[in-house]
Amino acid sequence: MATKLTGACIIGQSGGPTAVINASAYGAIRAALDADCITKVYGAAHGIMGVLDDKLYVMDEEDPQELKLLLNTPSSELGSCRHKMADPEADDTEYKRILEIFKKYNVRYFFYNGGNDSMDTCNKISKYMQSAGWECRVMGIPKTIDNDLFGTDHCPGFGSAAKYIATSCMEIAKDAGVYDTAQITVVEIMGRHAGWLAGAASLATYFGSGPDLVYLPETDFDLEKFFADCDAVLAKKNKLLIAVSEGIHYADGSFVSEAAVSATDGFGHAQLGGLAVKLAEALKNRTGYKVRGIELSLLQRCGAHLASATDLQEAEMAGRVAVEKAVEGVTDKMVAFECSRDGGYVCSPKLIPLADVANYERKVPREWIVPEGNNVNEGFINYCLPLIQGRPDRPTEQSLPRYAKLKKVLAK
Amino acid sequence: MATKLTGACIIGQSGGPTAVINASAYGAIRAALDADCITKVYGAAHGIMGVLDDKLYVMDEEDPQELKLLLNTPSSELGSCRHKMADPEADDTEYKRILEIFKKYNVRYFFYNGGNDSMDTCNKISKYMQSAGWECRVMGIPKTIDNDLFGTDHCPGFGSAAKYIATSCMEIAKDAGVYDTAQITVVEIMGRHAGWLAGAASLATYFGSGPDLVYLPETDFDLEKFFADCDAVLAKKNKLLIAVSEGIHYADGSFVSEAAVSATDGFGHAQLGGLAVKLAEALKNRTGYKVRGIELSLLQRCGAHLASATDLQEAEMAGRVAVEKAVEGVTDKMVAFECSRDGGYVCSPKLIPLADVANYERKVPREWIVPEGNNVNEGFINYCLPLIQGRPDRPTEQSLPRYAKLKKVLAK
Repeated sequence: MATKLTGACIIGQSGGPTAVINASAYGAIRAALDADCITKVYGAAHGIMGVLDDKLYVMDEEDPQELKLLLNTPSSELGSCRHKMADPEADDTEYKRILEIFKKYNVRYFFYNGGNDSMDTCNKISKYMQSAGWECRVMGIPKTIDNDLFGTDHCPGFGSAAKYIATSCMEIAKDAGVYDTAQITVVEIMGRHAGWLAGAASLATYFGSGPDLVYLPETDFDLEKFFADCDAVLAKKNKLLIAVSEGIHYADGSFVSEAAVSATDGFGHAQLGGLAVKLAEALKNRTGYKVRGIELSLLQRCGAHLASATDLQEAEMAGRVAVEKAVEGVTDKMVAFECSRDGGYVCSPKLIPLADVANYERKVPREWIVPEGNNVNEGFINYCLPLIQGRPDRPTEQSLPRYAKLKKVLAK
Repeated sequence: MATKLTGACIIGQSGGPTAVINASAYGAIRAALDADCITKVYGAAHGIMGVLDDKLYVMDEEDPQELKLLLNTPSSELGSCRHKMADPEADDTEYKRILEIFKKYNVRYFFYNGGNDSMDTCNKISKYMQSAGWECRVMGIPKTIDNDLFGTDHCPGFGSAAKYIATSCMEIAKDAGVYDTAQITVVEIMGRHAGWLAGAASLATYFGSGPDLVYLPETDFDLEKFFADCDAVLAKKNKLLIAVSEGIHYADGSFVSEAAVSATDGFGHAQLGGLAVKLAEALKNRTGYKVRGIELSLLQRCGAHLASATDLQEAEMAGRVAVEKAVEGVTDKMVAFECSRDGGYVCSPKLIPLADVANYERKVPREWIVPEGNNVNEGFINYCLPLIQGRPDRPTEQSLPRYAKLKKVLAK
């Protein structure tokens, strides 16, 4: 049994926001407010930047009902950052500052909610505090729509983004097929290095109407092969819907979105409007058909109105478990998920060392992508499906979402 | 009392789809199936094209439960078209063909669901049938997310699109403000000649978080004035969210989206990715801030998962009333809405002559736009708000929308 550690805690949010990262914050804040040994609960403004700048919000001052509305609020309500910490052996300036702040507020618990980089930040801070002799329990809470964190079945945020993408692709498929003339539509989906989100577009096809072709960054993109795939679909019908991950790349590793424009590669002229427009334009030059490029953009990561109840509950659970375990004595761990899908979906938390997670990207297994590399298969669908289930009860005002209105009282 | 007219009916859908045009189709189909004097109910494949091509689906053959799922299905399930009919005095070829089909199937009722052009089509067909001595009652059912039809308080389809736009803008505002660095986001919204949809973005601001500036095509756009508006917001905070109608234009009438690129107008280099990207890029050149352009694209017109219950009910009502009135003897009318907002919103159907509606575009009144021309005011909000109310019960399968699966049996 670990010694009881009494002191304040800081909760920070980092990296790109999601539809449910505030649910993790709520899980952690609520559990921290309820823990006897946690004397004060601070929310860091813009993640680690708020610690460095001594800008901490006192969560104890918030109205409990407003706080609970974090479950209904997309994006990172405390503010986020993309600050990469230096190696403390190379430059410990920021670490000294963090220690100073931790001492000032007697911070004994630090919870950081983010992706790979954030787990790296967590790990470095924890190691530094240990070497400085400041007892502090540090826990990582996973978050990323990209679903690319190591050591966990999936990441909070992915399920809701997947549901947004699948639902939107169903609607786009219905809309794009409405005229009797030929039509090609290309939808660009987030995911620079992993194709989990693009793959989720296939859920639309499995359960109604969705993309005919799906391209992930896990396989090399080949323009001639792509044209051949399109021709094969167009030989059967005059509607073609394609989903592409923003990170698709040629065999040499260069991103298709950034590829040089030449007369030979099918791209007629410079298109700065993004990958979807670029590919759509190439197909227009080739077929003469009407084309449309659609970028799901920010909406796929903040589309809280389509949040998956499963994702929301798990996100809240990840935050809560991080606090509960830290209070019990655990440190230097990230809350991960262990899931079983045989005989009903069950998701349980497990703890993995922060050092294992940091800076490693988990990709879609090749066996979940069809041999031709132009779609995912049932293995992927079965993996994905439980994660999008359920519609949470979402408070509204005038039929529009009612988000949390926090006071954000600054600590003195 | 009009004579009872016995025979078949045709229902067609035309123009750009909406989230609720199928609800109007359902209202009309269901009422027609229930009407004693309507012997057969046909759905035209791709609007008037299906009549010309003798491609009619027998709605009597559909499973009633699947048919009812049209209420849950976005886009035009029977298929749409953008076919503009010639003036019958100039060329009556197509009218002769339509008469031939009407005679073949004994069509005595024709219901057409669409916008301005469709009401024009309706009107021309009706006049031709009268001159040819073929008794047929012709009714228009309004539809357009653009909300620009004459003679009606609003159009079915607008409320759901407005709700999608407002909700999405709330989410974008949350997401785009997440970092502590400066950020400018430009959202492009449909509406070539009328700014009803762009104005709906302001609902987000009124009820939480939304655009700081909104530009409609009802006022002339001035780039220097636009920059000054942006500077004024940026002087107060480092986040700026702008909503623009795709149809904004300079004083000479030229669309900003199509404006020539020059060194003097602030547009640094050619941007083919659309208006939002173009304006965002101009602001980046000017401020050096991080920018993002977002086009809501097709999703705003087919986002049925965010449909307004009010819009859905009214769309269904418009279809039903068209059939009921035609059975009673009315012809050459469009079902319009008369609404009162004082002391609670009430919407009642009224009938207006087709000839009055055809080819006239209704714009946002100048008094609902702020004097500076960079937003709408409370008059607009009060007009819009009742139209987005309520969340319909939407059947799902595996937490994804369950759309109607029609058999679409062709008439022989």
